[in-house]
Amino acid sequence: MNSLKHKIISMVEDDLADIEASLKQNLNPYLDLVFKTASHILFSGGKRLRPLLMVLSARICGYKGNYDKTFSTIFEYLHTATLLHDDLVDEATIRRGKPVANAIWGNSIAVLVGDFLFARSLSIAAETGITKVIKIMAETAEAVSQGEIHQLMRKGSLVVSEAEYMKVIRNKTAVLFQGACHVSSLLADAPEDKEIALSEYGLNIGMAFQMRDDLLDYTSATSVLGKKVGADLKEGKMTLPVIYSLKNTSPEDRIVMERIIKNNDFSVQEFETLIQMIIKYGGISYTENLAAEYVKNAKDVLSVFNHSKTKEILEDIADYTLVREL
Amino acid sequence: MNSLKHKIISMVEDDLADIEASLKQNLNPYLDLVFKTASHILFSGGKRLRPLLMVLSARICGYKGNYDKTFSTIFEYLHTATLLHDDLVDEATIRRGKPVANAIWGNSIAVLVGDFLFARSLSIAAETGITKVIKIMAETAEAVSQGEIHQLMRKGSLVVSEAEYMKVIRNKTAVLFQGACHVSSLLADAPEDKEIALSEYGLNIGMAFQMRDDLLDYTSATSVLGKKVGADLKEGKMTLPVIYSLKNTSPEDRIVMERIIKNNDFSVQEFETLIQMIIKYGGISYTENLAAEYVKNAKDVLSVFNHSKTKEILEDIADYTLVREL
Repeated sequence: MNSLKHKIISMVEDDLADIEASLKQNLNPYLDLVFKTASHILFSGGKRLRPLLMVLSARICGYKGNYDKTFSTIFEYLHTATLLHDDLVDEATIRRGKPVANAIWGNSIAVLVGDFLFARSLSIAAETGITKVIKIMAETAEAVSQGEIHQLMRKGSLVVSEAEYMKVIRNKTAVLFQGACHVSSLLADAPEDKEIALSEYGLNIGMAFQMRDDLLDYTSATSVLGKKVGADLKEGKMTLPVIYSLKNTSPEDRIVMERIIKNNDFSVQEFETLIQMIIKYGGISYTENLAAEYVKNAKDVLSVFNHSKTKEILEDIADYTLVREL
Repeated sequence: MNSLKHKIISMVEDDLADIEASLKQNLNPYLDLVFKTASHILFSGGKRLRPLLMVLSARICGYKGNYDKTFSTIFEYLHTATLLHDDLVDEATIRRGKPVANAIWGNSIAVLVGDFLFARSLSIAAETGITKVIKIMAETAEAVSQGEIHQLMRKGSLVVSEAEYMKVIRNKTAVLFQGACHVSSLLADAPEDKEIALSEYGLNIGMAFQMRDDLLDYTSATSVLGKKVGADLKEGKMTLPVIYSLKNTSPEDRIVMERIIKNNDFSVQEFETLIQMIIKYGGISYTENLAAEYVKNAKDVLSVFNHSKTKEILEDIADYTLVREL
């Protein structure tokens, strides 16, 4: 475990324990199978980054109520719902080192339990009685589904632009982080400048988070990541490290790169060759630098808040998105 | 077209045209493919019963605003989202005489466009600023997903009780009708007695609607229904006509019935034999009578409203659920 992660966890241990308990308590289906399927993916070592961000966002806005832990489940349930549907869409077999839910219970159960989690999430959000919370949730869910569809439509295409990639990751990932931080500021009845700051903070770390995710597919070992390295490419998913390198490659190397990318069944050796070219043409460093810019923005917008332990943790979490290993 | 249907349609022609326009206008995705996929199922000859009930429910409570047509899309979008997911779950091939969306665009698109429709539905509901509307929507969506899962879990089982059947159809179908009528009373800011009446009306016609649906699988010709007759049984779905008849059959006839039910690939002749036994042991008439009771309840609870053209249409719609052919 790297030291930043260690530091963050030590500062939020109690919060994480409360979040874990809340995720169990609020699930509440009448069918055991729903509990079992949802638990399989919900309690499989997720980082709880979204609920943690919600608790911290409410706290930095001075929230003193006792609904924050319950409330923090809404974006984790929503996120888990999208994971259940994504695993089916991506035809993934492993998530976090375990077989995906649809491989165990079938596509139908995975889809319907995802729907249930979405509905639960909504029920808990509705309890706040804050209409703007619901609007943000709805917009988030619209963006996520469209981002996923957009990505799916571009599957297998080699001509994805950087702008298109940015639009996809914003919709499929970043708006969820944005929504999580934003709604928590509303729960805390924060003034508008703080509401905007947290919304921007969430959006920016969400962008960095997804870029790091896409980098890890080219830099991490399978055993650490809990899924197969090179999986994105095998699914036909073009991400920034490849998009950038392909744009800057020599005509000769482009031929080599495209041959590997187009081959859904490339060997480990071929993948190594591709990674060397991505490094050579700057795809890794470009993505790292861009992610770092987003993290800088995320920390900058927090300037509306006075220094506090909570602010420090939010800054650390921003930095952590750049160095996380899984 | 039977005469009751003709009468209802003649009385709500303008409303239906407005609803149709509203369903098109409010869809609003940024991706063409989403519009295309959603339109394939949304504009394929659906009866628009749910949005029509919403418009009429608001009207009978004296609603005078101009949001009712937009608002009426929310349960049609939600309903359509569940259809997209159900067709995947049921492995259906035809709906309303057309190939299902997942057969054309694949399971992934069907799942994600369903998610998008759910989110759109929520966005439009959130515009009202009425928290209770959102709560009801969330509860409805929770019930529907659990009802579907429940049904799926009992697939292929011959020992489904009448009580379990009732619970499944209440969750998967009736709460949606209930929710549609209930939220419209809230949009109209109706007094509590009228709110309760419309909620009960919706629940009761929803139960009758699903029973009629299940009856049609045994009484209708394929060409009329737009899907294959006997499809429920081939999917391993036990519905009330069969459940009731199996309970009352003679030991000898039970052997014949069970043999046909267990055979996923029964012939037209075998299906005819089964239908004769269902008739003989009262499964058809029992289901018809029970559905008629629910319709009677639905009309009785409307007694809190004075006579009006709108009330007459709601009564006619209740009667129509018993005689509809598709």
